[in-house]
Amino acid sequence: MDHARTVEMKTYWEDVLLQKLKDAKEAQSELCHLTAQKKNDLLAAMARTLRTHEEAILAANADDVEEAEAKMMPSARIDRLRLTPERIQAMIEGLDAVRALEDPVGHVTRSFVRPNGLVIRQVHVPFGVIAIIYEARPNVTVDASALALKAGSSVVLRGSSETLHSNRAIVNALHEALDILNLPRALVTFIDIPEREAVDVLIRARGLVDLVIPRGGAGLIRHVVDHARVPVIETGVGNNHLYIDRLAELDMAVRIAIDAKTDRPSVCNAIETLLVHTDIADQYLPRAVQALIAHGVEIRACPRSLEILNGAGLAAKALQPEDDETEYLDLILAVRIVDSIEEAIAHINRFGTKHSEAIVTEDAKSAHMFLQSVDAAAVYHNASTRFTDGFEFGFGAEMGISTQKLHARGPVGLMELTTIKYEVTGQGQVRGKR
Amino acid sequence: MDHARTVEMKTYWEDVLLQKLKDAKEAQSELCHLTAQKKNDLLAAMARTLRTHEEAILAANADDVEEAEAKMMPSARIDRLRLTPERIQAMIEGLDAVRALEDPVGHVTRSFVRPNGLVIRQVHVPFGVIAIIYEARPNVTVDASALALKAGSSVVLRGSSETLHSNRAIVNALHEALDILNLPRALVTFIDIPEREAVDVLIRARGLVDLVIPRGGAGLIRHVVDHARVPVIETGVGNNHLYIDRLAELDMAVRIAIDAKTDRPSVCNAIETLLVHTDIADQYLPRAVQALIAHGVEIRACPRSLEILNGAGLAAKALQPEDDETEYLDLILAVRIVDSIEEAIAHINRFGTKHSEAIVTEDAKSAHMFLQSVDAAAVYHNASTRFTDGFEFGFGAEMGISTQKLHARGPVGLMELTTIKYEVTGQGQVRGKR
Repeated sequence: MDHARTVEMKTYWEDVLLQKLKDAKEAQSELCHLTAQKKNDLLAAMARTLRTHEEAILAANADDVEEAEAKMMPSARIDRLRLTPERIQAMIEGLDAVRALEDPVGHVTRSFVRPNGLVIRQVHVPFGVIAIIYEARPNVTVDASALALKAGSSVVLRGSSETLHSNRAIVNALHEALDILNLPRALVTFIDIPEREAVDVLIRARGLVDLVIPRGGAGLIRHVVDHARVPVIETGVGNNHLYIDRLAELDMAVRIAIDAKTDRPSVCNAIETLLVHTDIADQYLPRAVQALIAHGVEIRACPRSLEILNGAGLAAKALQPEDDETEYLDLILAVRIVDSIEEAIAHINRFGTKHSEAIVTEDAKSAHMFLQSVDAAAVYHNASTRFTDGFEFGFGAEMGISTQKLHARGPVGLMELTTIKYEVTGQGQVRGKR
Repeated sequence: MDHARTVEMKTYWEDVLLQKLKDAKEAQSELCHLTAQKKNDLLAAMARTLRTHEEAILAANADDVEEAEAKMMPSARIDRLRLTPERIQAMIEGLDAVRALEDPVGHVTRSFVRPNGLVIRQVHVPFGVIAIIYEARPNVTVDASALALKAGSSVVLRGSSETLHSNRAIVNALHEALDILNLPRALVTFIDIPEREAVDVLIRARGLVDLVIPRGGAGLIRHVVDHARVPVIETGVGNNHLYIDRLAELDMAVRIAIDAKTDRPSVCNAIETLLVHTDIADQYLPRAVQALIAHGVEIRACPRSLEILNGAGLAAKALQPEDDETEYLDLILAVRIVDSIEEAIAHINRFGTKHSEAIVTEDAKSAHMFLQSVDAAAVYHNASTRFTDGFEFGFGAEMGISTQKLHARGPVGLMELTTIKYEVTGQGQVRGKR
């Protein structure tokens, strides 16, 4: 009996979920023809309803925070899920920023006339249904919705259970905005089914979900990539390196190391490892590490760099093999001396996650070699890796940083949230000879 | 004992396969820096060695044909695997065609200077290792290698067991060309491991294979898409429709129907269903179907169209529900009357495989609505679906027709066989305020 009941219940929530996805797909046919003006009106309405729902959202968020505290969640994680009037204001400003962006739908990338008179146009069109699976931070609920809707797609949101109350309150506000514009609520579809397996049903719903983007920790991303049957954009994991070449300008090399490690250590475009050419290590390492330690950074040094640092009276731990593949997301930095730029590139291509990689050098030939040979979404010469970001690249808002090679690589902006279609216009052309 | 031995043997071929993939990856680092000239020299050498190996290739192919005949393989399938001097000549001409194409590697798509002075360039770069899994037709061995190599990637080839001898002989010729240019043979890696499971190891080799493209029947494509852990471009299945609108020019509508169905019924850009607006059905259907029957086409008609055809004394079978989702790849055509363009679009978006869809109409509004609302790689107004093809689009050769929305949609040419990277050049820029 118990078993039969479980099966029945499972069938029930699966049916609910699949019906929600069908509704999201159906609703999208109303969105894909909207003018940029109408879509911007929707974003403006969303900003207004977020404001009018502010109290309800903060109250719901207080429930989430209370539950998290009861579960003894680490305070850093509680801080990420906590909402304040300032954070709601930031969401509203995010909506305004997306509103200001150019509409990618209808953008003609290529257009040509064939010798037989066919006119072929490659046009950007919406994906259809974009699903976002995310952890903590409730602001993703607003940011992701705004980007997907402006790109002409329905959005399906699956947040974490930790932010369930907050997300539900935010979605209520967004639904009210859809009501005002006489648009179907299914354009913003919230999956609040408690079963963990709901994620797996969602990422296998071929024909109903056109794109899934996981946003969160490495475990979540790994799970989605391994189990998805629908197209995925893999985002976010950044085991990044900064390589200081033999002919680096030392002041610049120190400044960039400090910025890339300490400006915001918890994000994916921060560096985790500093590679230093052996010829410059004696001069560079003591200066750089002294400054890094002053910024609160813990150093994990290879045997050769450890010797230099110990000689200079600077504290460092011994590097362990697992450090090479660890994304600390914290004020910790691995330090390695390399004998050549080739060794640096080989190390990066072996251990990097193809996110952001940088070289500091005054040697144009080394810079060229590094930019060409390092396999990553963004490669930097004499600049911090921290610039891999939709705003910094000038794309406006972003849905994350893609570390895959298919479709989108680097910041995923509005254009990357569309696909293309060929529109071919003829006057009766046929291919056969008859 | 037996079990232990099986496990051991399995481990052995898996190791061999993974080592081959590692070699292909390693070899690619020599290819990605080659000039367009050097890559073209390689393609020219491949054309020459195919010529000098012609006898050996034809002899190996005779073995494949003999085995196929012994297995009583259908003659159409034997014809597809059979090589002739003319077909080898076509492969050589294919190499020349790829040689003539512009090198996509290094192509700068976007370039901009940020207010902080950072110069950001979006540059096309090779994928790395591209794996092709294909059935029958040995010419794919040459075509796929040429495209992948020119796009700067190693190619890993997994053909069907039916063409093992032919493919091995062709790969021998290609390896001799690599020898002549002093390039590693692993740039063209042939997987001749007999175990069927080799495909699954190949498509799960994350970090070793950067892209996999299945080329073959619906079963193969389905299997690869369902089991791959590496990025896939899904190609080829085309359940396409031709919709004859109320205001169609009748001669044109007949001509396009004949071409789209009969010019080459076995390929993915042929049509499988003819949708006809009810207002024009009485005039159009008898004329079109008479011409189609004269071209050897079997008609499967919905009840309303069956009545019209019977009234005109034309032979047709009754349409079955499964016909709507069948890609016949044969001289068979489903015929349906629809009451409106909306019904036609809804039918196409439900049953189509997002490949190529066409409308014939003199009504600009209907044409616009169809091109906008139909979800497919290529949408046609007053032209045959047969033009969805890399050559016809002017891309030169192609690796297939993508029916997915991620990365490549429609003909997959050289540009689609590359990914992009952001190269960022600074003068010491940091993001933090310090």
